[in-house]
Amino acid sequence: MDKPFIYLDHAATSWPKPSLVVDAVKEAMERDSANPGRGSHAMAVRASRILFEARRSLAKLFVVKNPNDISFGLNTTMALNTAIKGTLKPGDHVIATAVEHNSVRRPLEYLKRLGMIDVTYVETDDRGQLDAKQVQLAIRSNTKLVVVNHSSNLLGSILPIADIGEVTRRRGVKLLVDAAQTAGLLQIDVEGMGVDMLAFPGHKGLLGPQGTGGLYVHPEVDLEPLLHGGTGSQSESIEQPSVRPDRYEAGTQNTAGISGLRAGVEHVLHETVQNIHTKEWTLTQLMMEGLLAVKGVRLLGPGLGRPRTGIVSFVMEGADPSEIGFILDQHYNMAVRTGFHCTPLAHGTAGTLETGAIRASVGCFTTSEEVDAFVGAVNEIGRHYS
Amino acid sequence: MDKPFIYLDHAATSWPKPSLVVDAVKEAMERDSANPGRGSHAMAVRASRILFEARRSLAKLFVVKNPNDISFGLNTTMALNTAIKGTLKPGDHVIATAVEHNSVRRPLEYLKRLGMIDVTYVETDDRGQLDAKQVQLAIRSNTKLVVVNHSSNLLGSILPIADIGEVTRRRGVKLLVDAAQTAGLLQIDVEGMGVDMLAFPGHKGLLGPQGTGGLYVHPEVDLEPLLHGGTGSQSESIEQPSVRPDRYEAGTQNTAGISGLRAGVEHVLHETVQNIHTKEWTLTQLMMEGLLAVKGVRLLGPGLGRPRTGIVSFVMEGADPSEIGFILDQHYNMAVRTGFHCTPLAHGTAGTLETGAIRASVGCFTTSEEVDAFVGAVNEIGRHYS
Repeated sequence: MDKPFIYLDHAATSWPKPSLVVDAVKEAMERDSANPGRGSHAMAVRASRILFEARRSLAKLFVVKNPNDISFGLNTTMALNTAIKGTLKPGDHVIATAVEHNSVRRPLEYLKRLGMIDVTYVETDDRGQLDAKQVQLAIRSNTKLVVVNHSSNLLGSILPIADIGEVTRRRGVKLLVDAAQTAGLLQIDVEGMGVDMLAFPGHKGLLGPQGTGGLYVHPEVDLEPLLHGGTGSQSESIEQPSVRPDRYEAGTQNTAGISGLRAGVEHVLHETVQNIHTKEWTLTQLMMEGLLAVKGVRLLGPGLGRPRTGIVSFVMEGADPSEIGFILDQHYNMAVRTGFHCTPLAHGTAGTLETGAIRASVGCFTTSEEVDAFVGAVNEIGRHYS
Repeated sequence: MDKPFIYLDHAATSWPKPSLVVDAVKEAMERDSANPGRGSHAMAVRASRILFEARRSLAKLFVVKNPNDISFGLNTTMALNTAIKGTLKPGDHVIATAVEHNSVRRPLEYLKRLGMIDVTYVETDDRGQLDAKQVQLAIRSNTKLVVVNHSSNLLGSILPIADIGEVTRRRGVKLLVDAAQTAGLLQIDVEGMGVDMLAFPGHKGLLGPQGTGGLYVHPEVDLEPLLHGGTGSQSESIEQPSVRPDRYEAGTQNTAGISGLRAGVEHVLHETVQNIHTKEWTLTQLMMEGLLAVKGVRLLGPGLGRPRTGIVSFVMEGADPSEIGFILDQHYNMAVRTGFHCTPLAHGTAGTLETGAIRASVGCFTTSEEVDAFVGAVNEIGRHYS
């Protein structure tokens, strides 16, 4: 195909990665990939330093005082499972929202199925916007945890974390934030926003490789680890060490991937989250204006001019979203995601539970020319359906 | 330092990686790293293919019929936690051995602490060698699972998996094998050996990057997944899909790392496991002969001429192992591991629970010249202590 490739699937994973990220992965594999924390020889020390420096960059980004309160894992799903299963005890009540991803809903429903917990999903409006008062109203005497998606991966709406954090802090409830769509893309200040636990991906807004992600845990919160195993420390103990980050990092970590993640976070810190967000927001507005002019298109999520992340989802009257995605891929060389996006809750909220939706998501390297070309393609396709 | 670097810490992680492995990671990051299974566009399809091809190579290596019975994860520890916590129910009895790593012992002790299970650790001899009859004798009416380290990460002894598999199959008990030290280094045939679950690392004998590993689960065994979350499939269901590998692979996988892992496995298949094992065994015999001639050295594990993997651990009379390791690193530019190796059980077995030990481990790129240089260095150091 001679058409230039246009990648609009950044909400699934960012692409391309900055060349510094790729170089960092390669260099770590070639030079520094002994086993971090498992030896005192020079290369093992260099491997440990990679992990520490990545923690320090992330701590700067999320305004975390002690980098060791950040632990690494495979992905956001692992971080969310660690936080949810490590916090909840039989009899607890949990509040989540009507825009949660399956990475939150499925662990909660699993614990509910065991008869261990009760769950309330507070409603958002049909654009995925939430008033923190809804959370406040749902709190019961046995509410232990509130889990909130910082931004819906379908609707792009932004949830009022700081307001919710004020409520949970006042009521002595723990707050877990799913930052899958916002780490590196929206300002996050865990102390200032009252966040007790923050689950984040390495491979989306932070521009690192897949297979990286992590969890911030407030120093006063202690979790039963999801993984029990060797940490290279306190080997003689039959229990998981209490010292962080070892407590939450059993087994060998993804050293080279984390080196790439660090390079990605440094890129974000250099560009600044605010500039990246402003750029992405501007592109979404351009895309929305263009799509609104296409006959039969219905946009999901917050309206024009409203806050949102870089996600624009839509349906087209009379057209199967997966068919639109297929044509965009095959005839226009454009990558978007279609279907159900692992979030039936948000589809229920938006009224697209039967059809699914087309999701176009921009990234920090997306250009307005690419957005124009995409709108043009949807316009051409739309003519066949109207 | 002008001395050439000698890496003898392959039991922690293999290094260097073949250049094809590094290239595969780089190419996947640059070209194919959309989110596998999360889209139908061309790049997402290429990402899915990477995972499938890696599964196919691993299936060939472990003689697995259906590649989808292999799922990926962060590391062996995650695979072992998935297998152990996903199998056991309240009232179950588990048999493990006196050479298990903390990645097996700590999950078992955690479940025991909850009052959920009983555990028997069957004794090996003081060289870490086990007779399958010991396992047979320990089986009770409520024994659900036998967990066995295929090779002790301290002693290098090889446990008789096929014999144990015959016992467990006959008694209807599930067999979980920890192949941390043997995947790619010893023949493994899951069907032929009666293995129900096999946990393996990607970054040791398989020569892939850190942050990769996986779990084979026999088609007739079903586990409650360790991670609940999105899989890109059956999004509308509140339960984890039953279809494999999705059931055990929630969240975004380490696509680029797995591409590197596949290249590593292909390297192993090309060289053949048998040749790699023979080469490593020959190097260990050379090293053992040299070390036995050093005054005050006591070797751990199986004696000269006996089967073992590429691990040679030892203590030196009157010397602190960590001091030896420090001198090897600082004065000789040689990387070994010292201390407790995450396996107090095996140290108890070998009588080194108080002191720890020095572990030198060879890999498929280690040369006899390197082994000679290492023995020479230990010899020089030994003179200061005798």
